[in-house]
Amino acid sequence: MKFCSECGAHLNLKIPPGEDRLRHVCERCGTIHYQNPKIIAGCLPEWEDRILLCRRAIEPRRGLWTLPAGFMELGETLEQAALRETLEEARARVKSLELYTVFSLPHVDQVHVFFRARMTEPRHAPGEESLETTLLPEKEIPWRELAFSTVKRTLEAYLADRKSGNFPVRVETLKPPAKHKKSAVS
Amino acid sequence: MKFCSECGAHLNLKIPPGEDRLRHVCERCGTIHYQNPKIIAGCLPEWEDRILLCRRAIEPRRGLWTLPAGFMELGETLEQAALRETLEEARARVKSLELYTVFSLPHVDQVHVFFRARMTEPRHAPGEESLETTLLPEKEIPWRELAFSTVKRTLEAYLADRKSGNFPVRVETLKPPAKHKKSAVS
Repeated sequence: MKFCSECGAHLNLKIPPGEDRLRHVCERCGTIHYQNPKIIAGCLPEWEDRILLCRRAIEPRRGLWTLPAGFMELGETLEQAALRETLEEARARVKSLELYTVFSLPHVDQVHVFFRARMTEPRHAPGEESLETTLLPEKEIPWRELAFSTVKRTLEAYLADRKSGNFPVRVETLKPPAKHKKSAVS
Repeated sequence: MKFCSECGAHLNLKIPPGEDRLRHVCERCGTIHYQNPKIIAGCLPEWEDRILLCRRAIEPRRGLWTLPAGFMELGETLEQAALRETLEEARARVKSLELYTVFSLPHVDQVHVFFRARMTEPRHAPGEESLETTLLPEKEIPWRELAFSTVKRTLEAYLADRKSGNFPVRVETLKPPAKHKKSAVS
């Protein structure tokens, strides 16, 4: 961030009066440009004993498997974002969304939120950002080819909780993976 | 948003290839400037049967009462943001944070997240953004002078759930209040 998005002048990094951390401040119009974490919302879509996964057609982690999820947009609720991503990435419709996992990923300035959701029918197909989609039973989940740590944790929790039928909301902080890139979704 | 924060050139509103909605795109360097909802994190701090409230010293809603909460910063977890805001606004220390309420406010592009938390001692004092702080029992809560709908809903839920001692995570969407201003925290 180098220029003011309001007036086009140069930005300075400084601590504004009454604040305690560096901000990008416009040297001409004085606008303070705050930056904040972003939300990724997604679903764990279930059909009978199977889970819907998507193989990513885009970076990061092209070719690896994920639950349908993506950046929450302006004007959306968390549920709307999760539904939209499920429709966009897997051409699947879901209902009965229940908040399930909430992850803080401070190293990439993201919060990931997954809902358990029931597919309204077992139809799915790859959207523009997916190479393929599939409905898999537990024993066929490609654990070594999952794209993101939050997807892995959500699937692990779900399969453990499914034994009891009790799905408490899980709130976790995830550390960066061994090979960490700031620009990547972790 | 009028100028590119990367190169200072003018921005155009257009739908980038492969996307489905208008974005601010730089006419010179091509950078797409995404905008996303922001997260407000806070605590419902409890001490015995009392709840810690802060009277706001700043707009919006100056003079009204709130739970300590504020914008999540880069590099933080949800819990760290909630703890920091509690320390900043009420000079209070809390522990044992448990996720309690999650609100989507699509009309202001925010998600509000509150944790139940226990105060480590009954000490509190107004921080820079508060006029006063107070520990109140249920019957003294100023229902008509609460600053935000999400604070009201969190307090209502808490007092109802306290009767059973069971505090399920609540996920809700809140509509704009009657007198809605896009710039305000709702």
